[in-house]
Amino acid sequence: MARKRMRAGFQGERGAFSQVAVQQLLGPDAEAVPFQRFDQVFSALSRSEVEAAVIPIENTLHGSVHENYDHLLHFELDIVAETNVRISHSLIAPPGVTFARVKRVYSHPVALNQCLQFFAANPGIERVPFYDTAGSVKTIMEERPADAAAIASSVAAEIYGAKVLKRNLEDDPGNFTRFFLLRRPGHRTKQPVARLWKTSLVFSTRNVPGSLFRSLSAFALRDIDLMKIESRPLRGKPWEYLFYVDLIGRVDDPKVQKALGHLAELADFLRVLGCYPKGA
Amino acid sequence: MARKRMRAGFQGERGAFSQVAVQQLLGPDAEAVPFQRFDQVFSALSRSEVEAAVIPIENTLHGSVHENYDHLLHFELDIVAETNVRISHSLIAPPGVTFARVKRVYSHPVALNQCLQFFAANPGIERVPFYDTAGSVKTIMEERPADAAAIASSVAAEIYGAKVLKRNLEDDPGNFTRFFLLRRPGHRTKQPVARLWKTSLVFSTRNVPGSLFRSLSAFALRDIDLMKIESRPLRGKPWEYLFYVDLIGRVDDPKVQKALGHLAELADFLRVLGCYPKGA
Repeated sequence: MARKRMRAGFQGERGAFSQVAVQQLLGPDAEAVPFQRFDQVFSALSRSEVEAAVIPIENTLHGSVHENYDHLLHFELDIVAETNVRISHSLIAPPGVTFARVKRVYSHPVALNQCLQFFAANPGIERVPFYDTAGSVKTIMEERPADAAAIASSVAAEIYGAKVLKRNLEDDPGNFTRFFLLRRPGHRTKQPVARLWKTSLVFSTRNVPGSLFRSLSAFALRDIDLMKIESRPLRGKPWEYLFYVDLIGRVDDPKVQKALGHLAELADFLRVLGCYPKGA
Repeated sequence: MARKRMRAGFQGERGAFSQVAVQQLLGPDAEAVPFQRFDQVFSALSRSEVEAAVIPIENTLHGSVHENYDHLLHFELDIVAETNVRISHSLIAPPGVTFARVKRVYSHPVALNQCLQFFAANPGIERVPFYDTAGSVKTIMEERPADAAAIASSVAAEIYGAKVLKRNLEDDPGNFTRFFLLRRPGHRTKQPVARLWKTSLVFSTRNVPGSLFRSLSAFALRDIDLMKIESRPLRGKPWEYLFYVDLIGRVDDPKVQKALGHLAELADFLRVLGCYPKGA
């Protein structure tokens, strides 16, 4: 019996790096469903229009995506997996267009600015800003200019039937984006086997001196490792903060449960966002 | 005797939000000197081509600019002030172009995506992606299309002699970017009078359980308030972290000095990035 393909929402055009994350998280059979904005991805999952959602949460160069932390708090979905995608840019052209013929390269300005060495080495090539990396591949495949290429993920080339002319155009090979896989609370899936689990949570405290220190004692006193901590000021409340924390451990581990109980005493607000195997 | 204008480097085109930050930090007389990339801004200040630099360090929606934290570690400059700039988008057109005539709006895709309510309310207006918010104003002033406008800071309108047609196009009024003013170490300026000072530092620890907790004890035991804490994994060293911390206090306060001495015992690496009055 053929299994129904899982539908997973993501933000961007087909072939965006978020779709690469969908493949890494759910395999090639999952159907990636594009949305224009992040809130639409969250809302589609909440309303059961898709079964899963894949969202970027932080980037090694650009930091945490606070907007998606806000949506995680608002929509009450579960993080069930994470993955890291290397942001590797390919030069992509319609079949028949060779590198020697390329005079213009379309892409999102952020991607164009991540390939400055390539453009310095090829001063005859003009950079043309576009909405979206994958969208620029889609457009050159529709319009078929004889002298244009696009910069995007190699997955975008596959999806639109274009050709990869060059790989690894990016200046910085250390550019990674971390993505979360989200499901609705209470979904049932087979628990994966994993050596290390992470639990992500958000809490807030009033910043009386030492309140963060006391909050972290809940973990330190129980030898629980933290993989991430980040403060975010609450606007309009100058001395109040949200803290994002990822800890090593399963949320149902008695030690983690006790730590969360302890933290709940100390924090004004506490929410567990999910528990998932530590990704590669 | 006329005082020489201070030259301050920033990244972007003239009229970028970074130039708004230059004005907030140094007043209208400072000369804002544009550079294409952040590393060029840092390097120009290091080589004394400019006397100061203004760089974004975090945004309320998009998080910390890790790239600039990396440059702060690499270039050894001093943070001497901070300011928060509200990212408020204006619709800007050449004189003579009225709102009724606008059929196309140029801007950076990120800015266009921050004004979705405006475009939803004006479905007849086409969005055209461009490299830069301020650069789009510069271009429409050079090319003078009869039906085009740009989205950028109102300062860009002033600089290029364009007209603001509408203000506050942004969907989210809570979009702020925090900027640092940098000088070379050892520069002499009159110390401003300030009630609250902040000290920014970076340190690293190996993530043995509780190492962050022990590090923070250096501050908590001395009732020193933290305004920001953020971990950043060191790539390729899965259990080592950089921590960014902003504390309330002057670096020359004996209590802060003792805390830094204590932290230096516990951390593998510690650097004070600067001490400056808490900005509005």
